[in-house]
Amino acid sequence: MNETIAFVGVGRMGANMARRLKDQNYRITAVYDVHAPSAQTLATELGAKACATLAEVTAAADIIFTVVTDDAAQRKVFAAVGDSLLLGAKGKTFINCATISPEVHVEIEAAATRVGAFSLEACMASSITQARNGTLFLMCGGQRSVFDRLQPLLKLLSDDGKLLRYIGAAGTAAQVKALVNMVMNINTAGLAEGLGLATALGLDAKVVMEIFSQTGANSRVIVTDGDDMINREHSCFFSAAHASKDSGIALALAQKQGLNLPLATATKAQFDCMVATGLGELDKSGIAELTFPGRGPK
Amino acid sequence: MNETIAFVGVGRMGANMARRLKDQNYRITAVYDVHAPSAQTLATELGAKACATLAEVTAAADIIFTVVTDDAAQRKVFAAVGDSLLLGAKGKTFINCATISPEVHVEIEAAATRVGAFSLEACMASSITQARNGTLFLMCGGQRSVFDRLQPLLKLLSDDGKLLRYIGAAGTAAQVKALVNMVMNINTAGLAEGLGLATALGLDAKVVMEIFSQTGANSRVIVTDGDDMINREHSCFFSAAHASKDSGIALALAQKQGLNLPLATATKAQFDCMVATGLGELDKSGIAELTFPGRGPK
Repeated sequence: MNETIAFVGVGRMGANMARRLKDQNYRITAVYDVHAPSAQTLATELGAKACATLAEVTAAADIIFTVVTDDAAQRKVFAAVGDSLLLGAKGKTFINCATISPEVHVEIEAAATRVGAFSLEACMASSITQARNGTLFLMCGGQRSVFDRLQPLLKLLSDDGKLLRYIGAAGTAAQVKALVNMVMNINTAGLAEGLGLATALGLDAKVVMEIFSQTGANSRVIVTDGDDMINREHSCFFSAAHASKDSGIALALAQKQGLNLPLATATKAQFDCMVATGLGELDKSGIAELTFPGRGPK
Repeated sequence: MNETIAFVGVGRMGANMARRLKDQNYRITAVYDVHAPSAQTLATELGAKACATLAEVTAAADIIFTVVTDDAAQRKVFAAVGDSLLLGAKGKTFINCATISPEVHVEIEAAATRVGAFSLEACMASSITQARNGTLFLMCGGQRSVFDRLQPLLKLLSDDGKLLRYIGAAGTAAQVKALVNMVMNINTAGLAEGLGLATALGLDAKVVMEIFSQTGANSRVIVTDGDDMINREHSCFFSAAHASKDSGIALALAQKQGLNLPLATATKAQFDCMVATGLGELDKSGIAELTFPGRGPK
């Protein structure tokens, strides 16, 4: 645990990953967030420095995790001009965990290489509880040698490595992540239709859901979203707006490949409808507001 | 095991249910199929009579299972005029296992009641192996008293009753079955899109499938259809034409309720496309022929 660690982006995911590594005897030396009070609070909790600039973050640690919101935020923290993680970054290692477009991971790796730094993408297919417990499903892309060197650290976040996968070159993990979320979103939208129609027919949606779980209709989203759809409990773990974004990344990849994906297209349209009608900040389970009788916007 | 049993419709499902009940010491006294040689072969195997008319079937057994293909076939075996299972049916019990429209179950129950017979719908959400092993997921609709009387028999087909459910009045089990298949078909179509795009991107579809199974993208159809999609192994267990029919039943129910279900609609369009392009008799996993690069009709 000789390496020092910093975190850029300390929302629910980043903060819990930092807490996990602190528990595992890593020194968290610096944290940064565009929302400064979040960084300050976590810094106090972990005995780290809340940095005012990105260059300070790079100076303060050997390994810098970035857990930001989107392509624009990822590009901003690695900006070529002005304050940037790339300033003084020679020999430093970046681990980029945001769900962003594959090509941005390629860009960041190239930019890091130019200044003598290392970059690994580590896409997460899990949620907040798993971040805190160190049981994230982590899909990694980048140079194999960088991945191998970071394995001891990454294992502490991925159930001793049982949930750690090396996919391939930079960007490939983001591709797989986009595929995971595309399929998850389709299953979510489909479940909302099944439970919505069950309710419209006067059937007991809970009984129908139990039957789904015992049959060919079974899926992970029944466990994560089924009760929430029935109970209209849409506190946000993974927002409809995020679901729309991720399905959009997958559809852009499909379009480049000349593939027609009607289910993914219909799913994105549903999440776009949520965003357009003011439901975008509900959890993705809120898609049930579009399919249950007597609910949601017209 | 005092009651005698007959089967009408001895395709792969019906024949295996008959074998299972024979193993459990029921006497199978009569079988019937529109394809007479199928009935003759099974009759010889089980020591039953291959009947030439439906009225003979009813005369030969106390309990008659019907496992036919669709609404038209179900109505035909219960015809009001001509040869029919309803002839001499007073006191007999019909157990109707076909995947048909809910309203047909209501019609059949009314017709059976008029001649002093009993009727139960027993929709199956499993496949051929489960029929043979007596581990069918059985969803039942009809009078509760009829269901209760038949429970000892039905338990032998449903893992000692662990997979046996009473849903409600006649037609409600068919509604749930339509919902199960609608959601299963959506998940299948979505999986085909995910694996197709993975392949187009040059990723290893088997690795991606394993990651789906570990994440929010997990679903039962990964187990039943994933490898077949990758390997183009589309020997028919559940045909695309059947999938289209079942999604159509669900969409008709949704339309009556004024519900808009875009995922189910997109899924039916995909299976309809298979039928229209000569792929309708492939297994439903054949939907991957529409989504993998370089495959299928244009």
